[in-house]
Amino acid sequence: MSSAKYDVLTIGNAIVDIIARAEDDFLVKHNINKAAMNLIDAERAAKLYDVMGPAIETSGGSAANTAAGVASLGGTAAYFGKVSNDHLGGVFAHDIKAIGVDFANNPLDGEPATARSMIFVTPDGERSMNTYLGACVELSPNDIDSDMVADASITYFEGYLWDPPLAKDAIRLAAEIAHKNGRQVAMTLSDSFCVDRYREEFLNLMRSRTVDIVFANEAELKSLYQTSSFEEGIKAIREDCALGIVTRGEAGSVVVTYEKTHVVEAIPVKELVDTTGAGDLYAAGFLFGMTHGMSEQDCARLGGLAATEVIQQIGPRPQVRLVDVAAEAGF
Amino acid sequence: MSSAKYDVLTIGNAIVDIIARAEDDFLVKHNINKAAMNLIDAERAAKLYDVMGPAIETSGGSAANTAAGVASLGGTAAYFGKVSNDHLGGVFAHDIKAIGVDFANNPLDGEPATARSMIFVTPDGERSMNTYLGACVELSPNDIDSDMVADASITYFEGYLWDPPLAKDAIRLAAEIAHKNGRQVAMTLSDSFCVDRYREEFLNLMRSRTVDIVFANEAELKSLYQTSSFEEGIKAIREDCALGIVTRGEAGSVVVTYEKTHVVEAIPVKELVDTTGAGDLYAAGFLFGMTHGMSEQDCARLGGLAATEVIQQIGPRPQVRLVDVAAEAGF
Repeated sequence: MSSAKYDVLTIGNAIVDIIARAEDDFLVKHNINKAAMNLIDAERAAKLYDVMGPAIETSGGSAANTAAGVASLGGTAAYFGKVSNDHLGGVFAHDIKAIGVDFANNPLDGEPATARSMIFVTPDGERSMNTYLGACVELSPNDIDSDMVADASITYFEGYLWDPPLAKDAIRLAAEIAHKNGRQVAMTLSDSFCVDRYREEFLNLMRSRTVDIVFANEAELKSLYQTSSFEEGIKAIREDCALGIVTRGEAGSVVVTYEKTHVVEAIPVKELVDTTGAGDLYAAGFLFGMTHGMSEQDCARLGGLAATEVIQQIGPRPQVRLVDVAAEAGF
Repeated sequence: MSSAKYDVLTIGNAIVDIIARAEDDFLVKHNINKAAMNLIDAERAAKLYDVMGPAIETSGGSAANTAAGVASLGGTAAYFGKVSNDHLGGVFAHDIKAIGVDFANNPLDGEPATARSMIFVTPDGERSMNTYLGACVELSPNDIDSDMVADASITYFEGYLWDPPLAKDAIRLAAEIAHKNGRQVAMTLSDSFCVDRYREEFLNLMRSRTVDIVFANEAELKSLYQTSSFEEGIKAIREDCALGIVTRGEAGSVVVTYEKTHVVEAIPVKELVDTTGAGDLYAAGFLFGMTHGMSEQDCARLGGLAATEVIQQIGPRPQVRLVDVAAEAGF
């Protein structure tokens, strides 16, 4: 791979998170799928906010969190995503730039508003997201800066981008540019319900080699292949992409290539606070490792380290510099 | 004291906090007084935000945090403060209502915007605040709901209210109503620089018995009496108000009445994260205790417990229910 200005370019729904604690009863009462991303419209967003407890606001968005993680590890990162020129759009742009990510910001002038996700964290640390996509529905091929894609070692996007109407075209364009320039393309399956909505399209992205690297958690893998067997899922993903990485929470992660399978242990957690961002930061660590010549096992270990850090705080963006955390852990 | 609808009514600058980590060098470079509240104008607010790291947003405001703390402890609380009808005004109103405080919200229509404070937390956990007062400058006697004041056991306000132009008139009106109804009036000296700005007026509030109860930390006490001797400060405050409560961080707190002085130990801190809200939550615990028949020592212990809880998290509002924390600690 030739040298690149960016280690990782990520593309995703640009979202500000609104995070509050809630009991499990609350999720049941308000019909929220636990541990999932629930899409909501503006009316439901207003109603849910009315019943939500006191909250904190922090920039989020899955792929944006990954870019932030790469930058926090000392890597070079860029991001494409759509906000509006409203208050939350300003917050989102500030935070991602402030952590050192090049944000190609081309905000909407006016409605719909910048996306927000109301996240309820239950006492077990699990997060249940309720996302109003707002301005994200306008993300389109016009938002793809070809030069930036060409100059990124890895272009990474989130499966969530299949929810807005035009983003998939943006992704296909970005993947084409990346491959033409000898770069790699990665995706995360995002959420098991999301996989259920777009199973055939995701499999097609993999089988057509539009995507080289796939990140999934265990539930997403099982949903993708409609199996209850983890082993079957691993067997299937081996056929469908050059590199598959499957996270299993406390059970660590599994790295799958055509020839090999590496099982890498998780890093112990002192106090689980909020799982928001766990998968995003795992991907950040793994991709940073890949673009810095680490072995697959070390990539997985660094991913685990970054994920472990972020679940011991509130919110999906690391509040400490991950480069320091990694150095302390011997990376 | 006759029964009251509210244990505590608080009045203060209604502010949303924007919190980021920073090194001490950053404070020096940008001329920020460490551990203090620095007043800034809109232009400086924009400039500081440009150089600020990635942040989280959370409702704040000293007296508002105290009301939130009283509610979180299971007490009844109300709040007067001025926001605008903009995004941050909506966030502020949501959060204070969501924690169970009656917010007499009468927002400005338009400019100036809702107040915000950019808070830099240094590695020692100390917070340095940079506050743009915005809509707070419009708080006036018109915002005082007489019936609510008459129905609150204690009306508590922040010394910071001497910064906006009309709020002091609102406080004098509220104090008059409270006393007419046989209620008590409390204040916090807020900040040693604030004391320096309004020393004579604060002393006058105390000596004229406009205020019955005064909360201060050690630096504020010393500033009030322009002494470097803590003992001298304690001796002086004993003459000037019916009840003085002085917090000393790790050294606990001191409760001073005309007859007695109680020294109460602090509760050990596992991991200091962010001191934002420590004094506000101490006051919440103390005032909850006072309005629930606790001894002065127990009031101080409960204040210490609430303060210890809030400095082990980011932001000035408790992220857990303080009533549970208090129950666990035997209250």
